[in-house]
Amino acid sequence: MKTHTLLMPLDMHLHLRDGVMLENVAPLSAYSYSGAIIMPNLVPPVATREDLLAYRERIMAAVPNDYFEPYMTLFYKNYDKAFLESIVDEITAIKLYPAGITTNSEGGVSSFDIEEMRTTLETMSSLGIPLCVHGETDGFVMDREAEFMSIYELLAQNFPDLKIIMEHITTKEAVAMLDKYPNLYATITVHHLLLTLDDVIGGLMRPHLFCKPIAKRPEDLDALLSVALEAHPKVMFGSDSAPHPQHKKESCGCAAGIFTAPISLQLLTEIFDQFDKLDNLQAFVSDNAQNIYGICPEFKEVILEKRPFLVPENYSGVVPMFAGEKIGWAIESVD
Amino acid sequence: MKTHTLLMPLDMHLHLRDGVMLENVAPLSAYSYSGAIIMPNLVPPVATREDLLAYRERIMAAVPNDYFEPYMTLFYKNYDKAFLESIVDEITAIKLYPAGITTNSEGGVSSFDIEEMRTTLETMSSLGIPLCVHGETDGFVMDREAEFMSIYELLAQNFPDLKIIMEHITTKEAVAMLDKYPNLYATITVHHLLLTLDDVIGGLMRPHLFCKPIAKRPEDLDALLSVALEAHPKVMFGSDSAPHPQHKKESCGCAAGIFTAPISLQLLTEIFDQFDKLDNLQAFVSDNAQNIYGICPEFKEVILEKRPFLVPENYSGVVPMFAGEKIGWAIESVD
Repeated sequence: MKTHTLLMPLDMHLHLRDGVMLENVAPLSAYSYSGAIIMPNLVPPVATREDLLAYRERIMAAVPNDYFEPYMTLFYKNYDKAFLESIVDEITAIKLYPAGITTNSEGGVSSFDIEEMRTTLETMSSLGIPLCVHGETDGFVMDREAEFMSIYELLAQNFPDLKIIMEHITTKEAVAMLDKYPNLYATITVHHLLLTLDDVIGGLMRPHLFCKPIAKRPEDLDALLSVALEAHPKVMFGSDSAPHPQHKKESCGCAAGIFTAPISLQLLTEIFDQFDKLDNLQAFVSDNAQNIYGICPEFKEVILEKRPFLVPENYSGVVPMFAGEKIGWAIESVD
Repeated sequence: MKTHTLLMPLDMHLHLRDGVMLENVAPLSAYSYSGAIIMPNLVPPVATREDLLAYRERIMAAVPNDYFEPYMTLFYKNYDKAFLESIVDEITAIKLYPAGITTNSEGGVSSFDIEEMRTTLETMSSLGIPLCVHGETDGFVMDREAEFMSIYELLAQNFPDLKIIMEHITTKEAVAMLDKYPNLYATITVHHLLLTLDDVIGGLMRPHLFCKPIAKRPEDLDALLSVALEAHPKVMFGSDSAPHPQHKKESCGCAAGIFTAPISLQLLTEIFDQFDKLDNLQAFVSDNAQNIYGICPEFKEVILEKRPFLVPENYSGVVPMFAGEKIGWAIESVD
């Protein structure tokens, strides 16, 4: 049987939530990944040293062993230099949300006034703290990411030493930015390597495929695949796995987010195998992230096997992508 | 209190379904409309004289009085001349669905071979039977209607005496067709005068605003409003009200269709009032259709009143648009 081995897989964009949900979903990521960038959009958002350390402790308590590193992030606000210097060793990045743009982002940035942000962003530059950005405007849903490119350009030009990660990119416009500015990087989810808007609303409407940013057009999917499959050195895997309880997905108003944590590595292997690019998966799912972030995850070896895997209907009440369907690869062992 | 009177309102595109659903929804349309074009996409589709007459009888049995005229349609197939001559007095139009494009359309047209369709369409021309068309290709969901324009052009050019109704148009491209071909007409729904894709998936995902064709871009909404509010003489109101049981809307795979029958006239009045175009509503909601189809509905006078109306959470298990929300106009009386 065909197998493929991955070393120290990393999920560079992960929502673990809190409380019972955290306890339910954290072990699923910890099983197959060496570490993950942990998003700070709790209620209230993670924005103090106390909250950050306490959240990290709750995460560590929820994972069954010590082979999983939660790379912690702060919720972006304008922070002063003293605070950033005091917390630099506890965080891996700071995550910026435009206000109200996605789940629990109400306290985000409401205007991109560079001068107001300068102290924070220059301090981050000098301390080597990357800025992760949810790059969407509040415009028409299919245009939001493309419209945000001018803000990425503004940030990239004004803070040339700041590493800026364009999170969960979904458009050819974002892909084109990678080669335009040396300090722009990107994460790509597994679902955005599989879906277009057609899958979400082209047949029946699929709430479990609804996420922000929404999956875009076929030419956007092609652009994402092109850089992911080649493991473009500025591109990393970040699942944006975003669990919601089933009743918040299948209702009058379905929350945005696709839950892929327990199947993302298998799906990535299937995609890269289908395109005969398995040799590039290690870079996409770990090496590029290590280089970009300068992190050294603990050893973990995941062996995947090419055999049908029936995705469970739910994990503790959270419906995953492809629930009840068969995917082409399974995890054989983790060491 | 401000009132507005409408005479013989007509809904030129209506799904009444069958069985218990028919019994539940038909009275709601019959209350406020003088008549409606009844879509034939039952399972199996309405394609024989027997089925048509039996369906008409079931509709008449479901409405509480004789003030409602169901203008019957056949499901488009290639019919021979003798059959069309035999049924012309029983039908108002024939409805063409591309195969598989929407609810219960599996038996529709799978290729637009003009020569194969010629006998049917020329006979319809000579008998004065309009062709109603669900104009979408099987392409990317946001492009399907615009891509279908070339088929409308093919039909309009080859059958210049055939009245072709572009049903439930949603794009500026379809609006532009109205002035390009004398034999192209259109219906517009009330929800497509209110929604863009932003309302469907821009915030939370809204299954009760999910329909086919999907609501498009802001510039498309503007184009639709421009011809509706002016009551362009080739444009008619057709609700495309499409009831589904609640569990088929709020689930893993939500069926397409928005249920507006009981509130469409109120919403139209609110829209035309907001744009200060109430004087044009009579033409949009009745007179244009009478002229285009050459029909003479029985007298009905509906008086609407400008006061808040709380839309019920559901009508016999069918969730309407704006369920539980207040709209700005209510029906005061029907005579």
